Amino acid sequence: MSAIESLIREFARLPGVGRKTAQRLTFFLLKSSPEDGRRLARAIERVISEVVACSVCGNLTTEDPCELCSDLRRDPSQICVVEEASDIPAIESSGQFRGRYHVLGGHLSPLDGVGPDELNIAPLFGRLASDVRELIIATNPSVEGEATASYLFRLAAGHEGLQVTRLARGLPVGGDLEYADGVTIAEAFNGRREM
Amino acid sequence: MSAIESLIREFARLPGVGRKTAQRLTFFLLKSSPEDGRRLARAIERVISEVVACSVCGNLTTEDPCELCSDLRRDPSQICVVEEASDIPAIESSGQFRGRYHVLGGHLSPLDGVGPDELNIAPLFGRLASDVRELIIATNPSVEGEATASYLFRLAAGHEGLQVTRLARGLPVGGDLEYADGVTIAEAFNGRREM
Repeated sequence: MSAIESLIREFARLPGVGRKTAQRLTFFLLKSSPEDGRRLARAIERVISEVVACSVCGNLTTEDPCELCSDLRRDPSQICVVEEASDIPAIESSGQFRGRYHVLGGHLSPLDGVGPDELNIAPLFGRLASDVRELIIATNPSVEGEATASYLFRLAAGHEGLQVTRLARGLPVGGDLEYADGVTIAEAFNGRREM
Repeated sequence: MSAIESLIREFARLPGVGRKTAQRLTFFLLKSSPEDGRRLARAIERVISEVVACSVCGNLTTEDPCELCSDLRRDPSQICVVEEASDIPAIESSGQFRGRYHVLGGHLSPLDGVGPDELNIAPLFGRLASDVRELIIATNPSVEGEATASYLFRLAAGHEGLQVTRLARGLPVGGDLEYADGVTIAEAFNGRREM
């Protein structure tokens, strides 16, 4: 296979990248300076060789424990549980949470053979022994995310003095009521708040 | 900068890839097997080190002359002129053209300092010496593409017996008349054909 075709195929394996986009990316690199392309290749190599899962929270990191776990200014009494490490930057960008995280590594999905043992759940309950007072469950607002949240809620119910919360659902800010789906609008009604 | 952040930034330099997409690609590679990521990095390195411009037509290739120029079954009497090497796979996918190509490497754009000397134009007219009977100008249907086409047309007018054609404009197949812009509809009317 030619070098061009093989790069197009590798790009096309990436999520959301079809063959047309893969071609565009490949030709873009061919028009760029060789140094730009090499920097991308090196950044990929580096991420593969340097990044590990944090032994405390499961976040992806180049240092173990990760910078969020080792940041003493972060509140250890709150743990926010997310499905993927990639959810953390999104939550951090909200500026609303200063506690610790726990990454499950996915959601419960019995049809795909993903049960509690396949997720990073046992270590989460190991962490609850210490001074954790609130578990904020931030799994996705999808069927699997909800099932995972319910499962964690039932497990956590045995821990006295532990508050378990779930992120609010409702209309996305900047969204348009006209285009919101019925289920989201129903949640927004149920969760309506006094102004 | 962390390995993760630096890969996000490198991905975000690619066309059509914003920061969110760059994050998604990065986390995708982190969840994939290391071998998958390394294959992408190697494919990038390979394309950079192996791909050159064809000395005949300007197409990007790993062998010089390129496989299209060295394919003796392709008709040497027709040359299709395109702006970029990336236009060639699109035309090839139409199955409609079996001649040779010539890649200009862009379009005329005086404001950006791109004049005839910055494009691969002189070699095109060198090629016309031989048995070329038709020059099909397939620059983009944009202002710059049209200007480049007119320029080539004027240059080619001096070559006796050389037919110069331009790809037809009109409604894209599978498109919707309702959403077509007025200029395209005007072109479709002007170019209408007997059924």
